[in-house]
Amino acid sequence: MSYHKPEAKTVQDLKDLAQKLRIHSITSTQASKSGHPTSCASLAEIMSVLFFQQLRLNIKHPRDPSSDRFILSKGHAAPILYAAWAETGLFSVDELKNLRKIDSDLEGHPTPRLNFIDVGTGSLGQGVAVGAGMAYVGKNLDKADYRTYVVVGDGESAEGSVWESLHFAGHYNLDNLCVIFDVNRLGQSEATSLQHKMDVYRDRLEAFGFNALVVDGHDIDELCKAFHCAANTKSKPTAIIAKTFKGKDFPNIENLDNWHGKPLGDQADKVIKHLQGLMVNPDVKLSPKKVGKTGLAPEVDITNVKLCTPPNYKLGDSVATRLAYGTALAKIGADNDRVIALDGDTKNSTFSDKLKNVFPERYIECFIAEQNLVGVAVGAACRRRTVAFVSTFATFFTRAFDQIRMGAISQTNVNFVGSHCGCSIGEDGPSQMGLEDIAMFRTIPGSTIFYPSDAVSTERAVELAANTKGVCFIRTSRPNTAVIYNNDEPFTIGRGKVVRQKPSDEVLLIGAGITLYECLAAADQLEKECITVRVIDPFTVKPLDVDLIVEHGKQCGGRVVVVEDHYQQGGLGEAVLSALAEHRNFVVKHLYVPTVPRSGPPAVLIDMFGISARNVVLAVNAILKK
Amino acid sequence: MSYHKPEAKTVQDLKDLAQKLRIHSITSTQASKSGHPTSCASLAEIMSVLFFQQLRLNIKHPRDPSSDRFILSKGHAAPILYAAWAETGLFSVDELKNLRKIDSDLEGHPTPRLNFIDVGTGSLGQGVAVGAGMAYVGKNLDKADYRTYVVVGDGESAEGSVWESLHFAGHYNLDNLCVIFDVNRLGQSEATSLQHKMDVYRDRLEAFGFNALVVDGHDIDELCKAFHCAANTKSKPTAIIAKTFKGKDFPNIENLDNWHGKPLGDQADKVIKHLQGLMVNPDVKLSPKKVGKTGLAPEVDITNVKLCTPPNYKLGDSVATRLAYGTALAKIGADNDRVIALDGDTKNSTFSDKLKNVFPERYIECFIAEQNLVGVAVGAACRRRTVAFVSTFATFFTRAFDQIRMGAISQTNVNFVGSHCGCSIGEDGPSQMGLEDIAMFRTIPGSTIFYPSDAVSTERAVELAANTKGVCFIRTSRPNTAVIYNNDEPFTIGRGKVVRQKPSDEVLLIGAGITLYECLAAADQLEKECITVRVIDPFTVKPLDVDLIVEHGKQCGGRVVVVEDHYQQGGLGEAVLSALAEHRNFVVKHLYVPTVPRSGPPAVLIDMFGISARNVVLAVNAILKK
Repeated sequence: MSYHKPEAKTVQDLKDLAQKLRIHSITSTQASKSGHPTSCASLAEIMSVLFFQQLRLNIKHPRDPSSDRFILSKGHAAPILYAAWAETGLFSVDELKNLRKIDSDLEGHPTPRLNFIDVGTGSLGQGVAVGAGMAYVGKNLDKADYRTYVVVGDGESAEGSVWESLHFAGHYNLDNLCVIFDVNRLGQSEATSLQHKMDVYRDRLEAFGFNALVVDGHDIDELCKAFHCAANTKSKPTAIIAKTFKGKDFPNIENLDNWHGKPLGDQADKVIKHLQGLMVNPDVKLSPKKVGKTGLAPEVDITNVKLCTPPNYKLGDSVATRLAYGTALAKIGADNDRVIALDGDTKNSTFSDKLKNVFPERYIECFIAEQNLVGVAVGAACRRRTVAFVSTFATFFTRAFDQIRMGAISQTNVNFVGSHCGCSIGEDGPSQMGLEDIAMFRTIPGSTIFYPSDAVSTERAVELAANTKGVCFIRTSRPNTAVIYNNDEPFTIGRGKVVRQKPSDEVLLIGAGITLYECLAAADQLEKECITVRVIDPFTVKPLDVDLIVEHGKQCGGRVVVVEDHYQQGGLGEAVLSALAEHRNFVVKHLYVPTVPRSGPPAVLIDMFGISARNVVLAVNAILKK
Repeated sequence: MSYHKPEAKTVQDLKDLAQKLRIHSITSTQASKSGHPTSCASLAEIMSVLFFQQLRLNIKHPRDPSSDRFILSKGHAAPILYAAWAETGLFSVDELKNLRKIDSDLEGHPTPRLNFIDVGTGSLGQGVAVGAGMAYVGKNLDKADYRTYVVVGDGESAEGSVWESLHFAGHYNLDNLCVIFDVNRLGQSEATSLQHKMDVYRDRLEAFGFNALVVDGHDIDELCKAFHCAANTKSKPTAIIAKTFKGKDFPNIENLDNWHGKPLGDQADKVIKHLQGLMVNPDVKLSPKKVGKTGLAPEVDITNVKLCTPPNYKLGDSVATRLAYGTALAKIGADNDRVIALDGDTKNSTFSDKLKNVFPERYIECFIAEQNLVGVAVGAACRRRTVAFVSTFATFFTRAFDQIRMGAISQTNVNFVGSHCGCSIGEDGPSQMGLEDIAMFRTIPGSTIFYPSDAVSTERAVELAANTKGVCFIRTSRPNTAVIYNNDEPFTIGRGKVVRQKPSDEVLLIGAGITLYECLAAADQLEKECITVRVIDPFTVKPLDVDLIVEHGKQCGGRVVVVEDHYQQGGLGEAVLSALAEHRNFVVKHLYVPTVPRSGPPAVLIDMFGISARNVVLAVNAILKK
């Protein structure tokens, strides 16, 4: 499509609107007495052109699945984002004065408490991954016309996660993605390392597979042309690398150090007057483009996802829970065509390849780049387009803790599945062992943590996770474990199972995954010593079945032993302690991996690091004296 | 320096040695019945040339500060690394058969349990950061001749952290760093995204500031020439991009899928015979180069680091602990010239700039790239060259959780300082609030966690951290808090302080940072209601002063209230619960931030999210009924 310059009037209107956005950014941060007006100023022309010349929006329904997506990755420029949306007519411009107030959702950094925000930003370097996830779904699953735009700050482009995502977008030819780099030269505490080296940005982006366009970010004409080029470039994503100035058009502030994250204070009035003087029409009003009538996103239903067939095992079968995960994933994938899986080149270990084998178009290989892996999943799940399951070794999710944390702020429903937990993986050694994953996922607000111990409960965990809001984490194990539940056993979030009990029980044992079996073996052994113990499988660590533990703990004299293949802190043990915190008369012995493990056979390691049946027996004997 | 080709005999010896390394990699993984021989095979010529033609080593003292550094970032190729060191004569080749055995330190992935390993690898994409830290110190602090070599797998080069580090190395002109990319085309579960696109690698590396050389990674001549070029290239680091084949010279295995992480099994004998057939001299023996006599690293002493002057505050002064951190950092920096600080463009918020202001040469700006920030710190602290303090907002350390986790496996002594903890930061909103940082750092084996509440204790925390082995974390707060300790108050790791007590106390309150002051305010208020409470400042969360808490908790009827500006899981509250786990007759009320907070004034937020003095009063009244 050949390019037609916008008319002079349009260009002038967009210029005026950019100044209006600058003024809003100043007045709102003056009202809040905090915020980042200079980081907004560099973006003003970009936002003006994006919102009033590019983006196809549905102002009545900002999360219309067919509308263009916009992510402000440099979330600290929130005031100009809010200003742009206010100018579209979504809400009153007066509202902007409530920026950062306790009773306003116009927070310091954007969150989806606002109906026009898809994901929280503010922890830098995460927007491109989310945008890439949206674009991937738009191109390959929705096959719709909506485009995705991400604005990235030059400071945050130092984050490696950005380059993971750029590579992903280039590799998958996401020509429906446009990433705008706001190269305003200045970081928080000093100039960025690349300052205004526009050639370096271009070389890097071209090498990462982008159509890379360097423009004057304050020139409306150049921006319009670049966005047109982006929209008409096939099989490559486009990067618009905009040379800008921090605090642009703020006299004595523009392009100067020490103005990051500060309202203009007593300079505000003077600057606003100056900006008004630059405007031809101070009352300029523009409307965004509307969503077209064709190329719409299909309607989808991601509710009530089910295993297409129930679990099908025999009691006593020996099946790793990681394998049962793959089986269940394929089953829910057969039930609902919006179930997708993402992995970081571990699919033959996590068994996410079981979905790929039957529905290759619904598997997204993200290679060894876990931050992008998680970000893409969050993006793919936005606007409820997909039910996303993302898997890798449990411990490698630590690589993406910040993305998962922001996922909670983003109200994501992504499901995480971490295999190879604990020292029971054996010879590969400590770098591959998930020993802090429960602690990490427990801190995520609203998260649900499944720790299934057999194949039947794993399949149900997958089914439940698919239908559960918020972050879900399923911890799977490498070794085979016995099937202990019947195929028709019902499972519920927050409900544990008593897997062994007698009226004479003196101690309550709680284990999950491989340690549940160590507890059962210990119980057998103890019975020979005429000590009977009760054993609980919690099924979910969060929420934990507090009532069940309290009830049975009391029946066992308040004596509880918790055993887990995890470090001491933040795992199942401390979850139990939190559950019992306000109950007197409990005593808890906690068996956990006390230090960095080493390479060796699983059975040797779990004994050496204190979580074997033998250790449980010792703990029971010790606690009986308490 | 002009390049002289090695003699034909030398080339043949290096070729033979490469085959010997391949054979060792096969035999050791045959013995362990697990491991990654094909990932070793692609590296054989690279390792042969590195160890027997390039690296200047001190075999009697592998951690000689003047010897060249070598990091195998793709740690799963450990068998060939062990083989190379065995061939240098450091230990017997027979030892290689103990690979991955429980009583051998030749673990599945390398750890510093071995005296020739500086850092643990195996979680991919971390080696370049560590190498860059070593090279930065070598060039700028040691000003010594040693060089740093890092071998990176092509699969792991998808990790964004690698690109953060490459950018860092390019930006700081680390010409003493050489990164070798083993581009063997195949990942774990499928081909890498770039396969053998050598031009793309070259373009990317050149754009990231490297002298980028593409070579045939199985050609000894080409490798020798490239390493010579690397050593003689000034003001730029060099990348040697080696085109290799996974399973090279393993018939019917080379360059084929489905051979990742598998010993050769019944094919081993045939392959070994084939390799032997390729050798001219099966008994080849070579020695590595020795460390030179000049350009040595200086002797340094990093023991007994002290504040150059004691804390100097008045009781009641209002000082943010983050500010006291900066003050203390400059003071220990004045005492010992090996104290360095690293930050990710937040130095004017964390106050690490206080060191930069007085000792600019000991401040390393890492820009907004926290993974590299942490990795560089780990590298800088290796071989006890520096006392490294690394700071950013507490929550942004989640970005580097995997690096911190691996830091523990690496036995690092890096000190982490996280500012802006909790919802008490106010208007910036949840993306900037550290609410899971204690949980994260508590899971790190051997870590020490300081949570100082006033300026005096903060200064002592910094001094203690500088002298403490293992990972230290100091949590600092944004708001000002009153100085409550005298300047000469002594502080010890694992010892808390009773800051308020009466014999009549009925409840023990535990708070830290801003919540200590909320506890004190609550105590004042409760006293008006004729309820007296005791208040403890734990000083360190890990180790926690268990004895003090048990003793005073008992004196208060077993009633404990813990208040923290952190999520429920894994923080101070669960640390207290763990401490009390085996004691009957305690009841603990835990006040914490229960959900994602929002933007607003600090005082409003801490009340809204349940951790203000008012909430403490309610909790005390409730617990008195228990």
